[in-house]
Amino acid sequence: MMETIAIVGVGLIGGSLARCVRERGLASRIIGLGRGTENLRKAVELGVVDTAETDFARGIGDADLVVLATPVRSLVGLLGRTAALVRPGAVVTDVGSVKGPILREAAERFPPPCRFVGGHPVAGTEHSGVEASFAALFENRRCILTPTADTDPEALQLVSALWRAAGSEVVFLDADLHDRIMGFVSHLPHLIAYALVNTVRDSEERQGNLLDFTAGGFRDFTRIASSLPEMWRDICLLNREVLLEAIGSFSRTLAALRDRIASGDGTALEESFRLARDLRGRLLEAGIDKPAGV
Amino acid sequence: MMETIAIVGVGLIGGSLARCVRERGLASRIIGLGRGTENLRKAVELGVVDTAETDFARGIGDADLVVLATPVRSLVGLLGRTAALVRPGAVVTDVGSVKGPILREAAERFPPPCRFVGGHPVAGTEHSGVEASFAALFENRRCILTPTADTDPEALQLVSALWRAAGSEVVFLDADLHDRIMGFVSHLPHLIAYALVNTVRDSEERQGNLLDFTAGGFRDFTRIASSLPEMWRDICLLNREVLLEAIGSFSRTLAALRDRIASGDGTALEESFRLARDLRGRLLEAGIDKPAGV
Repeated sequence: MMETIAIVGVGLIGGSLARCVRERGLASRIIGLGRGTENLRKAVELGVVDTAETDFARGIGDADLVVLATPVRSLVGLLGRTAALVRPGAVVTDVGSVKGPILREAAERFPPPCRFVGGHPVAGTEHSGVEASFAALFENRRCILTPTADTDPEALQLVSALWRAAGSEVVFLDADLHDRIMGFVSHLPHLIAYALVNTVRDSEERQGNLLDFTAGGFRDFTRIASSLPEMWRDICLLNREVLLEAIGSFSRTLAALRDRIASGDGTALEESFRLARDLRGRLLEAGIDKPAGV
Repeated sequence: MMETIAIVGVGLIGGSLARCVRERGLASRIIGLGRGTENLRKAVELGVVDTAETDFARGIGDADLVVLATPVRSLVGLLGRTAALVRPGAVVTDVGSVKGPILREAAERFPPPCRFVGGHPVAGTEHSGVEASFAALFENRRCILTPTADTDPEALQLVSALWRAAGSEVVFLDADLHDRIMGFVSHLPHLIAYALVNTVRDSEERQGNLLDFTAGGFRDFTRIASSLPEMWRDICLLNREVLLEAIGSFSRTLAALRDRIASGDGTALEESFRLARDLRGRLLEAGIDKPAGV
């Protein structure tokens, strides 16, 4: 498919993509870039990448495709340097969970026909780092790409082919619509999981005993809340407007439930619970209840 | 262990206990009671109970042990009738997820030495009904019993032995402390899952598209929010005071996160997420990250 692929940030996503590229023979050479020499050394040791490179210019200079897979805020800052240092004709893509700010920056840095393609593989686990990576991570998942009117069709085709080869269904979406949707179905749930776990944590400190009795429900929340703090900090800050709106909407819904509990309105409470339960049924019917992705 | 056990409410919990009793030979005869004749017919058909009985007096009159396994609010109302109709010496227990109101009612209805023992097997799935029941449901779970100073030691021993035979670890806890703990680690998480799913549901109705892109996090919430609406209505109303306090505490924690997002305070945000993540680590270390229970 190509000669050389450079992956910037060889963590769970970057590492899994690298394993995929090797396993399926999608490139002859895989270069891993990053700031953490320890992590890169491990990536080479594990055979995830062929070469590790800490010099950015040297690492991406020969690549046919550069995949930016660092935490999403640092990724925005990398676009300018990447555009300046790639060889002519190279394609650049990313895996960031927020797309609007990245696409706006890319529009400044990559003149049309734009060889940058925004991407978001909707996949992940609560683990992180190259040791947690595995080639099958993207199988039967969705990868959302956010092409614009200026996107080079050839670049879009290459990036689409990469993710399809990784086993994902490729879907095109407007970057801001992507951020809106993810703000509600992914970013808000993560934030709420963090808030809930910290509520129990504070309460445990005041009254003890709680953690000995963690039961259903709470354990799922702690799993979600064990996702990488830096990554979710970045996501929250980059998708701030949508997330603030989503938090407001959630807070009003919770307040309505609280009022029903306070006034003892069992009928309305049961009706709310039933509506929530029905949505699960719709998801299962639609077959979109796939294994976890972030 | 005993001659006759009567199980009132042959749903997921009552049915699973009945299967357990049969499988492990804990009683010679299992009588299933309930209002739904269709469900009882199914319980007999499936071999979960020996006899189905819709007449309450007849159903419990001969039993050595009566297990009340109906939704928790109706259970409070059954205590008086049960106390009046059981044969002398019979033991009565329950499986309700809220214990304070049940224990207060039982204290009125069962004179000391009290042959009623409050119980809460911390086990469950998001499914309900006798078809979803299975004998292994209680294995490696906790069953919380809430004896008081008036509890008959022999009754406590019988109920403890029953749950141990079902594979559970039996733990004694004060009823009000039980409700406090469960209010934070089980009831609050469920309520929040319902609120989140309804937030996404409302947003979907306004802007469409969301459900096509449900990803990690959200799916776990929908599973939790697909728990039985009547059951959670009852739990919310019976544990109202604790739950209102827990909602208040959670709302303050969420508001603090919202403020950090609004002001762009990434350091504080990351620190909050890190604290939540650490708690997951503590749970895993403590080995209390067991399979789901309700």
